[in-house]
Amino acid sequence: MLIKVVNPNTTLSMTATIGECARAVAGPGTLVDAVSPSMGPASIESHVDEALSVPGILEQIALGEAQGADGYVIACFGDPGMDAAREAATGPVVGIAEAAMHAASFLGRGFSVVTTLGRTTGRAWDLAEHYGLSRHCRGVHACEIPVLELETDPDARKIITEACRDAMERDGSDAIVLGCAGMADLCGHISSEIGAPVVDGVAAATLFVQSLVTMGLRTGKRAEFAAPPPKKYSGLLAGFGTD
Amino acid sequence: MLIKVVNPNTTLSMTATIGECARAVAGPGTLVDAVSPSMGPASIESHVDEALSVPGILEQIALGEAQGADGYVIACFGDPGMDAAREAATGPVVGIAEAAMHAASFLGRGFSVVTTLGRTTGRAWDLAEHYGLSRHCRGVHACEIPVLELETDPDARKIITEACRDAMERDGSDAIVLGCAGMADLCGHISSEIGAPVVDGVAAATLFVQSLVTMGLRTGKRAEFAAPPPKKYSGLLAGFGTD
Amino acid sequence: MLIKVVNPNTTLSMTATIGECARAVAGPGTLVDAVSPSMGPASIESHVDEALSVPGILEQIALGEAQGADGYVIACFGDPGMDAAREAATGPVVGIAEAAMHAASFLGRGFSVVTTLGRTTGRAWDLAEHYGLSRHCRGVHACEIPVLELETDPDARKIITEACRDAMERDGSDAIVLGCAGMADLCGHISSEIGAPVVDGVAAATLFVQSLVTMGLRTGKRAEFAAPPPKKYSGLLAGFGTD
Amino acid sequence: MLIKVVNPNTTLSMTATIGECARAVAGPGTLVDAVSPSMGPASIESHVDEALSVPGILEQIALGEAQGADGYVIACFGDPGMDAAREAATGPVVGIAEAAMHAASFLGRGFSVVTTLGRTTGRAWDLAEHYGLSRHCRGVHACEIPVLELETDPDARKIITEACRDAMERDGSDAIVLGCAGMADLCGHISSEIGAPVVDGVAAATLFVQSLVTMGLRTGKRAEFAAPPPKKYSGLLAGFGTD
Amino acid sequence: MLIKVVNPNTTLSMTATIGECARAVAGPGTLVDAVSPSMGPASIESHVDEALSVPGILEQIALGEAQGADGYVIACFGDPGMDAAREAATGPVVGIAEAAMHAASFLGRGFSVVTTLGRTTGRAWDLAEHYGLSRHCRGVHACEIPVLELETDPDARKIITEACRDAMERDGSDAIVLGCAGMADLCGHISSEIGAPVVDGVAAATLFVQSLVTMGLRTGKRAEFAAPPPKKYSGLLAGFGTD
Amino acid sequence: MLIKVVNPNTTLSMTATIGECARAVAGPGTLVDAVSPSMGPASIESHVDEALSVPGILEQIALGEAQGADGYVIACFGDPGMDAAREAATGPVVGIAEAAMHAASFLGRGFSVVTTLGRTTGRAWDLAEHYGLSRHCRGVHACEIPVLELETDPDARKIITEACRDAMERDGSDAIVLGCAGMADLCGHISSEIGAPVVDGVAAATLFVQSLVTMGLRTGKRAEFAAPPPKKYSGLLAGFGTD
Repeated sequence: MLIKVVNPNTTLSMTATIGECARAVAGPGTLVDAVSPSMGPASIESHVDEALSVPGILEQIALGEAQGADGYVIACFGDPGMDAAREAATGPVVGIAEAAMHAASFLGRGFSVVTTLGRTTGRAWDLAEHYGLSRHCRGVHACEIPVLELETDPDARKIITEACRDAMERDGSDAIVLGCAGMADLCGHISSEIGAPVVDGVAAATLFVQSLVTMGLRTGKRAEFAAPPPKKYSGLLAGFGTD
Repeated sequence: MLIKVVNPNTTLSMTATIGECARAVAGPGTLVDAVSPSMGPASIESHVDEALSVPGILEQIALGEAQGADGYVIACFGDPGMDAAREAATGPVVGIAEAAMHAASFLGRGFSVVTTLGRTTGRAWDLAEHYGLSRHCRGVHACEIPVLELETDPDARKIITEACRDAMERDGSDAIVLGCAGMADLCGHISSEIGAPVVDGVAAATLFVQSLVTMGLRTGKRAEFAAPPPKKYSGLLAGFGTD
Repeated sequence: MLIKVVNPNTTLSMTATIGECARAVAGPGTLVDAVSPSMGPASIESHVDEALSVPGILEQIALGEAQGADGYVIACFGDPGMDAAREAATGPVVGIAEAAMHAASFLGRGFSVVTTLGRTTGRAWDLAEHYGLSRHCRGVHACEIPVLELETDPDARKIITEACRDAMERDGSDAIVLGCAGMADLCGHISSEIGAPVVDGVAAATLFVQSLVTMGLRTGKRAEFAAPPPKKYSGLLAGFGTD
Repeated sequence: MLIKVVNPNTTLSMTATIGECARAVAGPGTLVDAVSPSMGPASIESHVDEALSVPGILEQIALGEAQGADGYVIACFGDPGMDAAREAATGPVVGIAEAAMHAASFLGRGFSVVTTLGRTTGRAWDLAEHYGLSRHCRGVHACEIPVLELETDPDARKIITEACRDAMERDGSDAIVLGCAGMADLCGHISSEIGAPVVDGVAAATLFVQSLVTMGLRTGKRAEFAAPPPKKYSGLLAGFGTD
Repeated sequence: MLIKVVNPNTTLSMTATIGECARAVAGPGTLVDAVSPSMGPASIESHVDEALSVPGILEQIALGEAQGADGYVIACFGDPGMDAAREAATGPVVGIAEAAMHAASFLGRGFSVVTTLGRTTGRAWDLAEHYGLSRHCRGVHACEIPVLELETDPDARKIITEACRDAMERDGSDAIVLGCAGMADLCGHISSEIGAPVVDGVAAATLFVQSLVTMGLRTGKRAEFAAPPPKKYSGLLAGFGTD
Repeated sequence: MLIKVVNPNTTLSMTATIGECARAVAGPGTLVDAVSPSMGPASIESHVDEALSVPGILEQIALGEAQGADGYVIACFGDPGMDAAREAATGPVVGIAEAAMHAASFLGRGFSVVTTLGRTTGRAWDLAEHYGLSRHCRGVHACEIPVLELETDPDARKIITEACRDAMERDGSDAIVLGCAGMADLCGHISSEIGAPVVDGVAAATLFVQSLVTMGLRTGKRAEFAAPPPKKYSGLLAGFGTD
């Protein structure tokens, strides 16, 4: 089974970490291919970044289809381009916010999200609402560390751990959801520090896609998510045309 | 990894089928132990049956804890006793309606549930609401075959397949959710007949529990779902006491 | 008119207090029969306790049907087994959380619940949501007094009164709902202390059942809440079988 | 105990019927005073009628306060002026739609409303939403008989009975709510014809107000529903001024 | 184009201010007629005041229909009598809370309302809910200045400005909605002081009505909002009768 | 005042029609600049098309900012890229679905959407939900005419008119919302044919942006919608980088 894990930003060190976290949980028969697109933002910290990461995601899904990928993970906590990805792919597609929030809902009545910049918390609430999980989402908290500094800031681990501890307390939550793919490798550490379940969306999405593929389940293709009709594209994006 | 799949009714032939369906999807390192309680209803077709299946479920979880089970599936589509089971168990617990509905939400915008008796459709709606998935649940349809006749009625497979086909059409759904553990073995057949994804909760719950255990995730135990306080129990249920 | 008030725990002193509170409001033609089951937990402080109180509730409803009871009150704030009780009983069944929350919604825009242990607040929110009253429910607050210490802790009355006062203030509520049948006898005292309406669910449920019976109203029996189909039960619960 | 039942329209024959229905259920110690205002519409069949019935309702509440009324029923299915009435009255105030919908929610999972004119169905949905009961309200159906013809149309009883039967069937409901005070006297007949619970809001509201008064409960007066600040009124409405 | 801006209270100085604010934004071809009714409360600070302002509003709409008004603004933040006004008027009718909340929803994810008395905040929440904007409404805050003192209290501007600043901070909002027509002239000042968008409902409603009229849009008249059926009215309100 | 109306597809004849419809309602002092991006799909009929129209929208907003545009309309009924556009623009941004749905909510209790292809109806529901207007949206109906055939299919006008008539009837709606910018010029015709208000989002959005600019209102820039942080972009999209 081939699962393609798409990091929608172009920072390869982050793609490497994401790939490791996915591989750490994937089953023995599952091949994880972690990739970054050839185009798009170095990190995703705004609605603009998120929107402009979608062409790259679709590029990677087209490549995945050619490779025969069985399913896809979109590894950015804003779950960018999910509907488009589900249209474009044959196999199942799961976003890491989607997977983490659903997984956390299995672990108790409420979870708290801890993410990077405050300006992205609105998007997290939007997704919780969209997935039907806003009642389970007790709070979305920012630690104000930019995405790419997660790897370089020596205090990042400590700051995020404390933010998780505070969030649990303030929200009366049963579990933590980590709000950025770049935090995937902190999951075990934080969980043992705060003594509570901490969900990393990269692992969760990888396992949920693997589960869906194992069951032979893929996106329903009879209506909204059927392959898009052929279309002429212009200019910079002409290559995406299918007509 | 040991996953205990609890069929809350006492009909062993159904437990056997459920166990096979769970084993068919479980990973190589996962041992599936499918069990029925020593007490309770032969099948679950009413709120009374459902309520009275819970002591048996808790009995099996107590046994599972002694065995060192890593996680539990509650294999009745009414998801009976979920909150109590999460309190009582150390590892994660997932219900089959819960798993199937969440899985179906990954496959498109809407799903239809096809279940046994009309009198159980209210409970299915309740669960969809409780899990936050009522917007995704487009319809709950009964084929009016009693649970135990799923195994014996020679027309069951045909009737259920047609009910699924009709439900997709009427609801404009992207996927079907099978609304009874006793339908687990029909999943592949129906899917190929109607050309759409069909989710069996037994498989989905088994894989989701396996996923949670793989990630080291279990029910948050700091508050609502901590182990229950010690308590004196009387009469027929005295054995459940912990004081 | 005979109203059976079922205290789902087995602590008879609490049953006696509940009976008195119910009788204090019942009309002249109404006989209140306050009972405890022969089986189950001494007090209900967890999801496990609540689930295991349901067989006893159903036992008492079966007895009530034989006695010709006209309606039933389930006198535990978790409203355990409501759906099953409505199936099993001929007359109307009302839970004390249900009654108290509905009554409080007649008294203003928002109410606060004050209950015993923090671990039960999740269930109170669930019920508010289920009854459609989560918008009216402004807060659920625990005073951390175990159920059976309500009768013995000399400071209980004072602590609960202060918790009610604080809850009103913090939530900006119009009324208080007492979150435990064991608090029924404190209702008048607290109300006069804090100068605001305080709703006891035992009184409210008794009067609502009496009202329904007076109007000749009982649970609709055409579909979901029809008497359960006959069923074989096994083991410890064999006596619940009807087949 | 004095309960004032305010028919917000000025048609005295309807007030008489409403009074009889209220008295038929009130307890032995309860005096029912059914009244019509001195001003306002002959029947309430539009938002304009409803809005212009409120001055008359407030006039009657002012009179009731002078009489020492213990509680009030607003006997029009649009529940006009409820918030104002709760501010103006010392005792509890319950509307007949409010009472009927809450009562019906005790009788099963869903109810259907059968009312007079199609143009009033929007208001019924609004109220269901406002009271938190829109999930229980499965349908609102009009029989297109104007309010005052309920008393004179010889076919009214038959038409409404059939509308109730159809509504139950179409909506899969457990109970019927009659959507007009002028239907109060049809309640028993329809219920025996269709074999299902039929709720009349006049009876339900009378009994709920009686229940609240018995418990010593009245509208919370600490904030939103405190007596209105003194105010100068002009013109036709100068008499409503309190300054 | 003639837009009638109805100040539902009878304080003419406030009507004058409201008229100026409406005229300041209206297009060159738009005539704004700002009026007060001949009857009703001097200011609207309770549910009673609000209910008793509706006859005056309907009087002004009847006059407007005779004048050939193209549309109407109801200039009180409780949006009194909206449904009745929409029935009675031929052209579109927009309330100032309605307009301000919708406008604010175009400016970001969340807004805060700053209003006069705390007792009116419940109504603001009701409206947010009714318009579907409760998710956008992050908080409703009172500055406890009575409506008529907005014009006379020398500190009003400062107090309201600080309340707006605090509300933004506490709620994490993107915009402020002013919760009283009497605050209309403070809009620009507050916005420049706090550096955030501040929405005045009088301006917003005037422009939205102008927009609807420009598009030839008016209330749909095929069902609920068709002109009310003819009706006899009695007593003080006899003049409202149409029969 | 300069309002930039961005047609997110690259079909210039459609842009011309959209521009005419916007200009037909804009005030005398408003300049409407209707544009298509240099890149992207010829028409938007899938989630993929929609996602890939966003780079072109952002290109046009960047140009608009350089031109000093005061506000923006996004003229595709899927409202693509709204959050990103609000971040990128200084002035207000309104989508045509957003504007049309809000406008329709002023005209009665419920509206029906009539759109092009069935596969886009899910997106329309999503938007209704996101804007808080799902309760007002009674139905979304497709006439199955591809976007570019709206201009060429000689039967298009008739088919769409009939679809509108049917939708009103089936949904019991008060108004129609046209679900495609390419239908903008049919608005008046359909309205007079079916005798009900028909809302075109292009006109509505143009007038709402004009209204916001007139009031000096723009997107709140203190948090989520502040200008995006500088960022390096790669590959095909390198030109969008700001670092």
